Amino acid sequence: MMTDNCEYCQLAGGYGELIEETPYWMIFLAPSQRYLGTCVVALKKKRANLSEVNDAEWDDFVQIVRKMEDSVNKSFKPNLFNWSCFKNAAFRKDNDDVDPEIHWHFIPRYQETVLFCGVKFDDPDFGHIPQPIARKVSSEVMNNIKLEIKKNLLE
Amino acid sequence: MMTDNCEYCQLAGGYGELIEETPYWMIFLAPSQRYLGTCVVALKKKRANLSEVNDAEWDDFVQIVRKMEDSVNKSFKPNLFNWSCFKNAAFRKDNDDVDPEIHWHFIPRYQETVLFCGVKFDDPDFGHIPQPIARKVSSEVMNNIKLEIKKNLLE
Repeated sequence: MMTDNCEYCQLAGGYGELIEETPYWMIFLAPSQRYLGTCVVALKKKRANLSEVNDAEWDDFVQIVRKMEDSVNKSFKPNLFNWSCFKNAAFRKDNDDVDPEIHWHFIPRYQETVLFCGVKFDDPDFGHIPQPIARKVSSEVMNNIKLEIKKNLLE
Repeated sequence: MMTDNCEYCQLAGGYGELIEETPYWMIFLAPSQRYLGTCVVALKKKRANLSEVNDAEWDDFVQIVRKMEDSVNKSFKPNLFNWSCFKNAAFRKDNDDVDPEIHWHFIPRYQETVLFCGVKFDDPDFGHIPQPIARKVSSEVMNNIKLEIKKNLLE
């Protein structure tokens, strides 16, 4: 996996901390928690475009969408979810080096401030596109967010 | 269909001009062509979240992804495609009125300037997330973009 191409993460650590994996995808808690519960869902196999994703990989992804929205609804009650597959950051280097990877940004969005583990999470951009601005929280809080999402994913 | 909830369009006309429809989705040429070939793929049935999209609707969407990337590759040769399902703009009003609709933003991205019908299209944000800034072109050019994408979609 590349470590520098997650445009919404903006922090060292690539896609983040692994929460769970399925046959074809890996689910990471994103390094930036500007929007509580932000995750990255990365395809294990290297493919450059969504049109190269095969039927089995799509079917697996659809199950992940349902499980993740359900899990984060139970945990943090966001108002909506933003899903995107962008890959722009992979194209910032010279053309020859370009090496995009399929990964989805899963970004829960909140109208109200959420308190989790004593930390306040608001959504300064609610109603608008998510901004690639980093917000780092302590490793203890990261771990608790991860456990919370994982617990509901496995139910 | 609502006419004010397409955050990347930013122009009157809602999702744009219909290019094609499939059993479950409608494909529109987006009113803003800041990124040449930008389309909206809207679910016909009203659903609020991607986790409510059923298997048949997803299967249909997967075929659309493959056809649209193939069509726009043939027409305009972008470097990559951005796909997103955001729905943020639907949440700008009071909570009671919130009425999101599933629609995908399909945004081709370009490293080099493309000349189409005598009009120059560059991508001022290449390598970065697409910006919700409107660029309107003439109705003649809009029609030609639409015909070009449709031609390749039907092949």
